[in-house]
Amino acid sequence: MNPTKPILALNAFDAKEAEGLVGRTAEMVERRRATAGASSVLFYREPIEMVRASGVFMYDRAGERYLDVYNNVPSVGHCHPRVVEAIARQAGEMAIHTRYLNDTVQGYSEALLATLPASIGNLVMTCTGSESNDLALRLAMATTGARGFIVTETAYHGNTSLVTEVSPSSLKGGAVPPHVRVVPMPAERDGDGPGDLAARFAGAVAKAIGELQASGHGLAGLIVDTIFSSDGVFADPPGFLKPAVEAVQAAGGIFIADEVQPGFGRTGAGLWGFARHGVTPDIVTMGKPMGNGYPMGGVATRADLLERFCESVGYFNTFGGNTVAAAAGRAVLEVIAGEGLIENAEAVGGYLRAGLRQLAGRRPEIGAVRGAGLFVGLDIVDPDTRAPDARRAGAVINGLRRRHVLVGAAGPFGHTLKIRPPLCFSREHAEMFVAALADVLERPAG
Amino acid sequence: MNPTKPILALNAFDAKEAEGLVGRTAEMVERRRATAGASSVLFYREPIEMVRASGVFMYDRAGERYLDVYNNVPSVGHCHPRVVEAIARQAGEMAIHTRYLNDTVQGYSEALLATLPASIGNLVMTCTGSESNDLALRLAMATTGARGFIVTETAYHGNTSLVTEVSPSSLKGGAVPPHVRVVPMPAERDGDGPGDLAARFAGAVAKAIGELQASGHGLAGLIVDTIFSSDGVFADPPGFLKPAVEAVQAAGGIFIADEVQPGFGRTGAGLWGFARHGVTPDIVTMGKPMGNGYPMGGVATRADLLERFCESVGYFNTFGGNTVAAAAGRAVLEVIAGEGLIENAEAVGGYLRAGLRQLAGRRPEIGAVRGAGLFVGLDIVDPDTRAPDARRAGAVINGLRRRHVLVGAAGPFGHTLKIRPPLCFSREHAEMFVAALADVLERPAG
Repeated sequence: MNPTKPILALNAFDAKEAEGLVGRTAEMVERRRATAGASSVLFYREPIEMVRASGVFMYDRAGERYLDVYNNVPSVGHCHPRVVEAIARQAGEMAIHTRYLNDTVQGYSEALLATLPASIGNLVMTCTGSESNDLALRLAMATTGARGFIVTETAYHGNTSLVTEVSPSSLKGGAVPPHVRVVPMPAERDGDGPGDLAARFAGAVAKAIGELQASGHGLAGLIVDTIFSSDGVFADPPGFLKPAVEAVQAAGGIFIADEVQPGFGRTGAGLWGFARHGVTPDIVTMGKPMGNGYPMGGVATRADLLERFCESVGYFNTFGGNTVAAAAGRAVLEVIAGEGLIENAEAVGGYLRAGLRQLAGRRPEIGAVRGAGLFVGLDIVDPDTRAPDARRAGAVINGLRRRHVLVGAAGPFGHTLKIRPPLCFSREHAEMFVAALADVLERPAG
Repeated sequence: MNPTKPILALNAFDAKEAEGLVGRTAEMVERRRATAGASSVLFYREPIEMVRASGVFMYDRAGERYLDVYNNVPSVGHCHPRVVEAIARQAGEMAIHTRYLNDTVQGYSEALLATLPASIGNLVMTCTGSESNDLALRLAMATTGARGFIVTETAYHGNTSLVTEVSPSSLKGGAVPPHVRVVPMPAERDGDGPGDLAARFAGAVAKAIGELQASGHGLAGLIVDTIFSSDGVFADPPGFLKPAVEAVQAAGGIFIADEVQPGFGRTGAGLWGFARHGVTPDIVTMGKPMGNGYPMGGVATRADLLERFCESVGYFNTFGGNTVAAAAGRAVLEVIAGEGLIENAEAVGGYLRAGLRQLAGRRPEIGAVRGAGLFVGLDIVDPDTRAPDARRAGAVINGLRRRHVLVGAAGPFGHTLKIRPPLCFSREHAEMFVAALADVLERPAG
């Protein structure tokens, strides 16, 4: 493996490097730089001014259409009319917090909890995946009296101070704090037999448990994105997480399933990514696709964890679980069921991976193709050495952008294309993507 | 002063104590308890099932109308048609993050920054006041290399792990961590001459600065809600904050103005609470009223602080500054200006305080009446001893609820009525409130 420093967000464009842009784009980048300052990171070497979106497409200021194979927040399709209508109607009727009783809010809580294991009895609504994971980590610490967490080496779980501690991918060159232990991403290796990956991952987790216990930090828990998105998308074999989760729970630790990325049907096998692994989390955290763009998140938890936490600290979230969020969330659940989006994710996701693997047979720049449902990771490698090739991945991403196809990068080497279109993606859209990728690889300068 | 343990949120009703309720309310409380568990705190001894809201009124399931003198999120009025229309239109057009260029988002950033001092050049959009304060504290720590913060004794700044450390009012019986120093709320005392309050507050802050420097934690900064909402609402005399802020900045610390409660016109003197004090913050944080219910927050900061922070940590907020948030936020700014809501807050706020003070002349249960614009604190005291009377305040709040008037409590003794209606509150509404309060005090069992 290539030992270089992680190169993240290769699709990112830093507005500070705006040289070479002209006209409206240059002007907009300059205005952006002035207001957003050091946080003004945009996508692509030539950023796009977007003005409209619908289904799997986005449209720029000139009316040009882009196939969206990246944005996982508008999960049931950009501007889905049922979700938009639910938001508009409820925003016009009442937008208020959870200190009053309300049937829309209560009904949504019940509908969402019904999709989870019976042991996960309570739901706290938040506004973002970051807020969800911040609370989840604190529930785990309050319950165990320990503060040690185990995470994967390129994990990203959110942007609050506490959550950044367990998000190695956010720390530019810095190390995680001593009470956080990282384990390698669950990647298959050549020659792996059945169970080898699961045993290797569980072994790394068991070693980290021992280190945390020996260090005095103790074990609070394990938190993983159940599709390992920022690690590079690792989904197979289903069940590989089980021995690691069992080791954590046997040692008294809390297993937090971060469903911000895989949740709400994306993996094509039920609503939740953890279900593919046959495990029962103690806490499930939610975010991005939950409201199809409406800012909302959630922490579903064993009731006893919440009870313990609330003994010492009050928790209230002003916008969390507001009436409009509940209406949006309910519409999302109904659209997923009504339009068969989980089944679609499985069918089209399989078709897409088959197409990409077929292309890999004739394009040596493509390494592994991984994933579940409509969450796919595709490695770009050096055609000769087969080593991760982040520079080439960046060129591919920007080449796809020139072909009006939106995609991003992930993984410790930044060489994995992160492919996660809206769940209404069709076979025709999959074919459009494969054709565009083939064209980029055949005509890299085009 | 009464040395009892803080009694907070006296208007709160714990769903665990639902005895005595019958019918639909009992059933809804039971369902709520089942899903929300230990976090299921509701308002009032008899919680209300709300279904609709408009302007300054909310409506329960039976169609009964309530005068809202409490909720500061729907700040330009519940379900203001211009804000609802902006949300509905933009949600149907495109709801996306800030990695693309977009004129709606850029225009809002520029409009908002134009209302702030020139030294505050950058804006990072978040989803909540909690996220805003979490980032603000980290900006201060990254810049100063220190972690010591100074806060008021009953402060509340949000719900993340880091922000809870500087929110003494969230810690049930627990103490703040050693790197956080609390100073008394800036309350006037009998016999205070001009400048005494300001000198006393600055003296307490200066002492805390010295302690933090001596302890090795160092001074990261001072964070205050510029109307001191959870401390009991302290607004006067304007300018009293200035010597304390100058002491912090002279010692190399960062001053964070938490405008989540006073911001967006509520104090009736410009958009921002800090402006009444003639100070220039290093960071301004925003939340609640920013989108009139749409979940959004912001961190406006000196550009150099953001630059320093981004050298070591990446920050991206998926929903923060999304296109719908920007449209909602822009509509809120336009409504505030177009309907003269700042002027209305000043005029009606003054009228309301005059009416309350007149009532205080004949009702010995009313102590001080404080505030600015439409943010008013009214102390409920023992008629004989004039000591804070939290039990009576709770009875008043529930008595007002029976009269269909919504209000809450604040302050270290829980005896301060927190009065903060939508900014479109009229003189007629103020009279309704004063009459209802008079009636509660005259007929407490009614």
